[in-house]
Amino acid sequence: MNVLILHAHPEPKSFTSAMKDVAVDHFTSAGHNVLVNDLYAMNFNPVGGKGDFKSITNPDFFSYLKEQIAAFKTDGFVDDLKAEMDKLLWADFILLNFPLWWSSMPAIMKGWFDRVLALGFAYHPAESKFLTGKFRDKKAMCAITTGGTPESYGPDGENGNLESVIYHINHGTLYYCGMQVLPYFVGWRAHLKPKEVLEQYLVDYKKHLENIDNLKPLY
Amino acid sequence: MNVLILHAHPEPKSFTSAMKDVAVDHFTSAGHNVLVNDLYAMNFNPVGGKGDFKSITNPDFFSYLKEQIAAFKTDGFVDDLKAEMDKLLWADFILLNFPLWWSSMPAIMKGWFDRVLALGFAYHPAESKFLTGKFRDKKAMCAITTGGTPESYGPDGENGNLESVIYHINHGTLYYCGMQVLPYFVGWRAHLKPKEVLEQYLVDYKKHLENIDNLKPLY
Repeated sequence: MNVLILHAHPEPKSFTSAMKDVAVDHFTSAGHNVLVNDLYAMNFNPVGGKGDFKSITNPDFFSYLKEQIAAFKTDGFVDDLKAEMDKLLWADFILLNFPLWWSSMPAIMKGWFDRVLALGFAYHPAESKFLTGKFRDKKAMCAITTGGTPESYGPDGENGNLESVIYHINHGTLYYCGMQVLPYFVGWRAHLKPKEVLEQYLVDYKKHLENIDNLKPLY
Repeated sequence: MNVLILHAHPEPKSFTSAMKDVAVDHFTSAGHNVLVNDLYAMNFNPVGGKGDFKSITNPDFFSYLKEQIAAFKTDGFVDDLKAEMDKLLWADFILLNFPLWWSSMPAIMKGWFDRVLALGFAYHPAESKFLTGKFRDKKAMCAITTGGTPESYGPDGENGNLESVIYHINHGTLYYCGMQVLPYFVGWRAHLKPKEVLEQYLVDYKKHLENIDNLKPLY
């Protein structure tokens, strides 16, 4: 299968980046095609707006949704955004690899979804979303590093259950477009853990990836 | 009081922008000091990373958290980021005015929080968060426009309850830093509503704002 890894971390030697490397090794060794989208290295522009389009149909009133629909019908997205859309179309499996910043993705990754998941291209509320979503044949999965402990993200944790915290990603974004969302993997509190714990995380992560065909989607 | 309005919409004539204008009028008329942070007009850079700092203490391994702590102790944030932090310190009330994009804020606003809520400045996990948070004397509130209907964001709605969807903002971001989070206001499905409905939304929003002293914080 074709695997697109969205990776958002400013330090290539970080543990989050090591998790990305484990995924690349795993999928490559298993014979899959892997494409890494290293958003920081790409200097990806996450700000959705007029810059997404070759031309604007209504210069007097910019409606992001209307311009997206128009661009989808006329091949009107700028080349670098079109290239990102093509990567998503190509992918059977989308892996989101990121540190949890303010209970969500870093802005550089949030903006990838703001821009790439354009109306018309990725969904249409009246026709294609959730079970009938355009990307219902694709699978997606989050691989996350956190500052907090597993307990703090547990059912009674002070941060709220992690599953609830990232509902806006797994359900509100990935599943909205029809993707089958597999259970996430977490490197807990990675920035404070000793080397041997981090190495064990990577072993555990490899096992998680080896087992993905047996994982029941969350959505 | 001092009111900081964070506004994220690419079209000044949008309904989301009209909601911002209602808030400006309301708070100004009531004798408050109002500062509008129009993130699109400012061309705000939402990508947190090395660019946040005047210098990097460890050029061989970039740790965002460690650099934030170091910069907080040495006044080492770049001037434009320091200016945003000063605005937040100045504010008694922070209003987040945005369209719901993928169950969250547009990336340009997400990145404002990624960068401004720096470790040391905005919180320290071991000391200052939630009830003991640094910003416990500040209030915050979201004013949101949605593509979906109230029913779709209701308790049994297909998008999930809106309160759950934006938990990562209200609880995971604002309350994490100690802010008292007031109930949000929503302009439902604004892009599809006729003029008279939008005008009624603005009347309702003004009433919501007039009543904020009586609103019980969600957190």
